[in-house]
Amino acid sequence: MTEAVGLLGGGVIGGGWAARFVLNGVDVRLYDPDPDAARKVDEMLENARRALGRLTYAPLPAPGELTFVSTPEEAAAGAGFIQENAPERLDLKRKLLAAASKVAPPEVVIASSTSGLLPSQLQEGMEHPERLTVGHPFNPVYLLPLVELCGGARTAPETIDRAAALYRSVGMHPLVVRREVDGFIADRLLEALWREALWLVHDEIATVSEIDDAIRYGPGLRWSGMGTFLLYRIAGGEAGMRHFMAQFGPALQWPWSKLTDVPELTDELLERLEQQSDAQAAGRSVRELERLRDDCLVAVLQALRANGVGAGETVAEYERTLVERAPSPARDAFRWETRVLPEWVDYNGHATESSYLLMTSHATDGLLSSLGIDADYLRAGGSYFTVETHICHLGEAKAGDRLHVTTQVLGADEKRIHIFVRIARDHTLLATAEQMLLHVDTKAGRAAPASPEVLTRVHEIVEAHASQPWPERAGRRIALRSGAPT
Amino acid sequence: MTEAVGLLGGGVIGGGWAARFVLNGVDVRLYDPDPDAARKVDEMLENARRALGRLTYAPLPAPGELTFVSTPEEAAAGAGFIQENAPERLDLKRKLLAAASKVAPPEVVIASSTSGLLPSQLQEGMEHPERLTVGHPFNPVYLLPLVELCGGARTAPETIDRAAALYRSVGMHPLVVRREVDGFIADRLLEALWREALWLVHDEIATVSEIDDAIRYGPGLRWSGMGTFLLYRIAGGEAGMRHFMAQFGPALQWPWSKLTDVPELTDELLERLEQQSDAQAAGRSVRELERLRDDCLVAVLQALRANGVGAGETVAEYERTLVERAPSPARDAFRWETRVLPEWVDYNGHATESSYLLMTSHATDGLLSSLGIDADYLRAGGSYFTVETHICHLGEAKAGDRLHVTTQVLGADEKRIHIFVRIARDHTLLATAEQMLLHVDTKAGRAAPASPEVLTRVHEIVEAHASQPWPERAGRRIALRSGAPT
Repeated sequence: MTEAVGLLGGGVIGGGWAARFVLNGVDVRLYDPDPDAARKVDEMLENARRALGRLTYAPLPAPGELTFVSTPEEAAAGAGFIQENAPERLDLKRKLLAAASKVAPPEVVIASSTSGLLPSQLQEGMEHPERLTVGHPFNPVYLLPLVELCGGARTAPETIDRAAALYRSVGMHPLVVRREVDGFIADRLLEALWREALWLVHDEIATVSEIDDAIRYGPGLRWSGMGTFLLYRIAGGEAGMRHFMAQFGPALQWPWSKLTDVPELTDELLERLEQQSDAQAAGRSVRELERLRDDCLVAVLQALRANGVGAGETVAEYERTLVERAPSPARDAFRWETRVLPEWVDYNGHATESSYLLMTSHATDGLLSSLGIDADYLRAGGSYFTVETHICHLGEAKAGDRLHVTTQVLGADEKRIHIFVRIARDHTLLATAEQMLLHVDTKAGRAAPASPEVLTRVHEIVEAHASQPWPERAGRRIALRSGAPT
Repeated sequence: MTEAVGLLGGGVIGGGWAARFVLNGVDVRLYDPDPDAARKVDEMLENARRALGRLTYAPLPAPGELTFVSTPEEAAAGAGFIQENAPERLDLKRKLLAAASKVAPPEVVIASSTSGLLPSQLQEGMEHPERLTVGHPFNPVYLLPLVELCGGARTAPETIDRAAALYRSVGMHPLVVRREVDGFIADRLLEALWREALWLVHDEIATVSEIDDAIRYGPGLRWSGMGTFLLYRIAGGEAGMRHFMAQFGPALQWPWSKLTDVPELTDELLERLEQQSDAQAAGRSVRELERLRDDCLVAVLQALRANGVGAGETVAEYERTLVERAPSPARDAFRWETRVLPEWVDYNGHATESSYLLMTSHATDGLLSSLGIDADYLRAGGSYFTVETHICHLGEAKAGDRLHVTTQVLGADEKRIHIFVRIARDHTLLATAEQMLLHVDTKAGRAAPASPEVLTRVHEIVEAHASQPWPERAGRRIALRSGAPT
């Protein structure tokens, strides 16, 4: 992956970056003058772990190390990439960027999370300003894929390329903004909408709750998969965008939006906003709302992934890289560790039946990886599928329990591998899962022998495991009485 | 349900209404002077059938009858509710509304789909204007739940109530706009955003494709579940909305949005929009794009339903009414239906192994429920646990596939129940799951006989199922060679 990332600032955005990098196996050195920074970043990490665990079954790498340092220079030292996340004040950002740029070698890219300060202005005072770019993410940074990139007058083209590559490597979707303008793209759109929303509250046309509902029960649903221009093109029917503009262009002249000044933020308006917002929250805490937001985002991302659309494709691509990067064969093919995730646990507080099979699937993935069943092999049309599974449940696991999962290969032929998986907490065996895997020619849609290379490795493993004792529970059948008819 | 609905106008909006009503079992009489109206509405119905079939497995009622008539009076005659969907021209709408109001008895509500003409103005010239309301839907009308209601100066309160009830009965989410303003709520917000988007194209900051991506890879994902105000409240952290406004309020004064006039729609700008839109569509037809849009919407709606949020709750409520209204078989402990949820699917697009066990668990829960294993029984210290499972995988399932899951009880004694679960898509068996359940005294922490009441029911079921053929795959063991040592 990459060497350490230095983070300058650890608030909502900086903490979000910390989570995204750390959970993708990247070491992070974080500077923030706030004495509470460590606690807040920790809470962000907890949210992020939860969200990521729900987002994908693909194996996450071992987390990176998170270190809190006392100066921006310490954050920058030894970093392969630096991300600045200070409050939106030009003087403050310049100071941090300049300090970091004195320490970081010229080839280290420095990105700013600024929502709208111009990169050309940020570059002032930096050593080697050509390595600066805007890298503007969206909250929650650990979940939303979009990051806007924008170079200043002195930014080198390769700076943008390298920042984009880094962001992609942690599952993001870089969008290059070709000319620097305040607010770039997304925030300009958001702000226009929000100004109008504030007018609606100001003029007492609607409450904050009603305004939010007007989005999320209607047009907001569309925007997760498609943007405004494509939606309008479709609405224009066969005649397309030209027709749409002809039909609806003139309406732009109508008094549908205030679009003049911002409503004055009087005490009265602020009071009204606060009251209505409290009513809308209906007693739910920030943490509850964050988790609800993240659960929706995860579900929506998975929905889009199932349809191969937009941000869903970003998730799918990210998963592919996670799988490809999974620990290399020799080390982890036959044993891995996990913690029982909160989402694996039922209302009794116990890990569900299906979570044991999930863990077994992960174990099998590791084994297959070690056999050379990689992305290329899959693309060439070969794969192993599970055709049969026998699970014995022996004990309970609770959320947070640390479990280890070991795989024993019992035998194989040219099409099949017979394995036995044990799931244990320390020395307590909690479950066993015996499986038969079948090699399939996915293009022909039927069973077929694995490749000679794979078979060679399979036989090596069968030999290596032959000395292990035959599992007590292998070959079991289910019956009320032993000797019962099959 | 309701008697027939009269539709005045059958374009994108009118056709969408036709689809929503017809597919919910409501007869529709549609007037549109366009000779092509029937063909276009038919295509809309095709899209809608497809989308609705993917949205819910709940049984849809027999479709209503769709009749095309030659005059607005014929559409209004005999209708229990009338919906006007003409182009956004005051004179045209008034004419149609007046004509319909002469024919429709005073108690028949007449709604207008206007995006922004004021209901007080629409009421002019109508007989019994107190029965008019705006009922403004969003494209595609057969999928998006939001409908904005707004009364004019003379509208009776019960008109709003009755229109809302009707819209709810066909699965929508009515939002009452308390004061009439041009554009109501949602379109004001959309227009503000769109004006800014047009400026970005005009000023050559971004292409239509980049602007759309800025939404759908970022903030657009959030808006499917939560609106701007709640999102900003969360971002404000523990200090809430007041803190957010203090931090970000001042930024509203920055030049982030043009927010002055609309860019002039010159030939040059229109040309640019058209070219960029064509490039974005990349050869895909309107029909393809409509279906892609609908597939995303369906998936997102199901994702939100799984989380009990917003429009997802609307879908869940709608499904409950569909189920309640369906011709009723007795509640079935031994069969249930589901759709493969997006989160059950791996990066190959197939339902994961563990999702089959999840479905099996659901089936078992249904069985246990029917035995009387309810909250009281659990509190008293009894429960059945799965001790052994044998799964055979026979076929693949994809996201959205409709599956049914049946349970056969093979046998039981005082502590155990032996069951066999089949998971199929139509007539194709995809997986079998044989299980042994063990009754446990949870307080003593060991196996124990179930209560006499439960055992009575268990034995009733064993007897009832005894006549079913013994499953081919019951009692299987896993082995490379049959007769292999155990």
